[in-house]
Amino acid sequence: MTQPIDAATTQRLTAAIAAAMPTAQALFDDLAQNTRDTKGVTRAPYGDGEQYAYRLVQECATRLELQCTWDAAGNLYMTRPGTDSGARAILIGSHLDSVPNGGNYDGAAGVIAGLAVLEAFASAGLRHRADVTVMAIRSEEAGSWFTGDHGGHLGSRMALGLIGASELDAAVRLDSGKSLGTHIAECGFDPQRVKDGPAHLSADRVQSYFELHIEQGPVLEMKDLAVGVVNSIRGNSRLRDARCIGAYNHGGATPQEVRQDAVIATSDLIMRVQRQWEALHAAGKDLVFAFGKLSTDPQVHSLSKVPGETRFSLDIRSGSPQVLATMRACVIEQARLIEAERKVTFELGEFSLSEPTVLEQPLIDTLRTGCEALQLPVFEMASGGGHDAQEFTRAGIPSAMVFVRNANGSHVAEEAMEMSDFELGTRLLGWAVAAQANA
Amino acid sequence: MTQPIDAATTQRLTAAIAAAMPTAQALFDDLAQNTRDTKGVTRAPYGDGEQYAYRLVQECATRLELQCTWDAAGNLYMTRPGTDSGARAILIGSHLDSVPNGGNYDGAAGVIAGLAVLEAFASAGLRHRADVTVMAIRSEEAGSWFTGDHGGHLGSRMALGLIGASELDAAVRLDSGKSLGTHIAECGFDPQRVKDGPAHLSADRVQSYFELHIEQGPVLEMKDLAVGVVNSIRGNSRLRDARCIGAYNHGGATPQEVRQDAVIATSDLIMRVQRQWEALHAAGKDLVFAFGKLSTDPQVHSLSKVPGETRFSLDIRSGSPQVLATMRACVIEQARLIEAERKVTFELGEFSLSEPTVLEQPLIDTLRTGCEALQLPVFEMASGGGHDAQEFTRAGIPSAMVFVRNANGSHVAEEAMEMSDFELGTRLLGWAVAAQANA
Repeated sequence: MTQPIDAATTQRLTAAIAAAMPTAQALFDDLAQNTRDTKGVTRAPYGDGEQYAYRLVQECATRLELQCTWDAAGNLYMTRPGTDSGARAILIGSHLDSVPNGGNYDGAAGVIAGLAVLEAFASAGLRHRADVTVMAIRSEEAGSWFTGDHGGHLGSRMALGLIGASELDAAVRLDSGKSLGTHIAECGFDPQRVKDGPAHLSADRVQSYFELHIEQGPVLEMKDLAVGVVNSIRGNSRLRDARCIGAYNHGGATPQEVRQDAVIATSDLIMRVQRQWEALHAAGKDLVFAFGKLSTDPQVHSLSKVPGETRFSLDIRSGSPQVLATMRACVIEQARLIEAERKVTFELGEFSLSEPTVLEQPLIDTLRTGCEALQLPVFEMASGGGHDAQEFTRAGIPSAMVFVRNANGSHVAEEAMEMSDFELGTRLLGWAVAAQANA
Repeated sequence: MTQPIDAATTQRLTAAIAAAMPTAQALFDDLAQNTRDTKGVTRAPYGDGEQYAYRLVQECATRLELQCTWDAAGNLYMTRPGTDSGARAILIGSHLDSVPNGGNYDGAAGVIAGLAVLEAFASAGLRHRADVTVMAIRSEEAGSWFTGDHGGHLGSRMALGLIGASELDAAVRLDSGKSLGTHIAECGFDPQRVKDGPAHLSADRVQSYFELHIEQGPVLEMKDLAVGVVNSIRGNSRLRDARCIGAYNHGGATPQEVRQDAVIATSDLIMRVQRQWEALHAAGKDLVFAFGKLSTDPQVHSLSKVPGETRFSLDIRSGSPQVLATMRACVIEQARLIEAERKVTFELGEFSLSEPTVLEQPLIDTLRTGCEALQLPVFEMASGGGHDAQEFTRAGIPSAMVFVRNANGSHVAEEAMEMSDFELGTRLLGWAVAAQANA
């Protein structure tokens, strides 16, 4: 249950967060120095970089006198106990791995913000009923590291019991050639216990999950805002390898009106999807899309022939399940219309579907109230990238996220974050956690 | 000067053309049998297939008591002399080479039609003032056979003195690795004399050039017509390697409205060109176009990224120089507008330009009159493919063409022609030549 925080407490917390910033800065600097790569940083899941980060945050937690425990998958929990040992815990989580040659803040910022919050709670003398635990999560960037049949977000899914036993063998790290299970064992943890369960985390032990993360897009930068409240994590619906099949013909002698031109038909489809986006965007709906891959057949196409085939991909993303469904229907309907008009055949294949995650409204409301209390502009937005918060939501644990402005894009060495923005984000995170923990 | 042909002569000529069809059929059969390849026929310029065809038609010409001469490039002239040795000759020309694995009629039909006309003139006892010469032309399909810097249509261009001396060395046959000059010499002709000149043919010795050819597109098939009168040979204006440059970005986290999506921008351009075609087509203009090659960058693109670049080609073809100019201007203007709207850059490169050939109106009129006299539907059309008639026009020799229906496309083994259609085309050709030769 959220409890309002009075102005004096808010002020005390704000000052304490400011006082915790040197610790945070030192952690960022240490990580940047000791997990650096030829470009950016590299913290492979269960590899040298991630292991270094775990040692570093655990040392810090020990200095802050937090209680440290590990689960069988190697996730680390750093807890400031509450006054009521029967109350369900509040988690502040994020991941410590990075993509290869990634940025220093993606993931780590959320863990370091959590530690800063707990340092501030201590220095401000804040008491709270529920335990507040910073969770340092493994292998959130699994999509960049592990091949094989797995569902991503491996660390949080293992903690929550959402992983299939087979994934521990099926997921193989691209650079090492070793399975997830082998990596877990080599780091001293227990893959068999991960498989056997029970899950380390569950809704009956955790009341809510908070995650601070750098924004992966330019929205806050564009809006000139330091922080945003995430209301949803976009799901996606995708066509991996769609085709448009027309007919190759003499490019000079075939009248335009009888051609079965796959390039024109595909362009027509793309522009119809674009117009559908315009309509939904104008109506305030959350939606992005890209035909990221498009090509005529290099074995057959030529400057002087009517193009008889295209292949293309389509990635539709939205925070709203309804919008995804609307777009899927639009693509299928428009393709059928174009088939009739332009004498081509679309072989779209099946749309994949990864449902959007709608974050917890009461927690969003708490964050909005926090923005007001802290005199920050209130700005809600969808997350374009995936996050561990999805998995907590899936496991029935109410979740919320705070985004911090990032000027230079995601998953690149150039990723950037101002410490002043980080401080504002951490202030908001701390305020909301304090309110939620009945401080 | 064209002279009307009376009904009795028309009737006599029609019967004589019919009587010449067995000779024509035998020539087609012999060629199909003796120049066949694994698929279709192959008659490489100056190679076995073309050489066989030359021997075959020369034997036929000898049987028909025509006067045979060769020029330095190896083109063959088979002449029925006129009554006035001072009158300028009329040529009926076409080529004997084929593309690799091509059809039996593309090129050869025009030579065989010429021989049928001269056989018919003899059997009908037609006298004509001007010499009428069937010209069997070398290497019209040079674009499919010769690499290197050459201007194509090599046989006719050598006969007309339109070839640069350097082309005889620069043009190298892909399969043999030998230059055009070497091939000419190996067939017993004289590449040095081709280089030195003078040209074998010129406007002061030739009054007009007629060419019968199978249509390379489906227009006559679609219109249910056996023959068409060609009024122009489409030129083209081309972009070989245009680029659209946007920006790669996170496909989930980048708001749609700030993307620099090269695929959407390129599709937008394609559909604007399509709408311009619709307008010009509705106004009765001759125009076709194709973006035959289109691709995102396989090294960089991905399902989940905003596409930051496309490459594409554009081939615009028209029988009208004005329409080509209009379309070029449209592409450039629309690209500029899209650049501003969609925050991309188009690097179109320079448009190449091969001007259309507008055939000779008085000869077109003669063919139209011939259609009426022979009770054939009058139908004018543009040629989508290039032909030797372009070169004769360029050399100042008035030219005309007759197309014969072809059901199954051009430059393929499946190319097809009905002998009944060929007979109608030959009848029209014979009528027009007779009229032009003051029979």
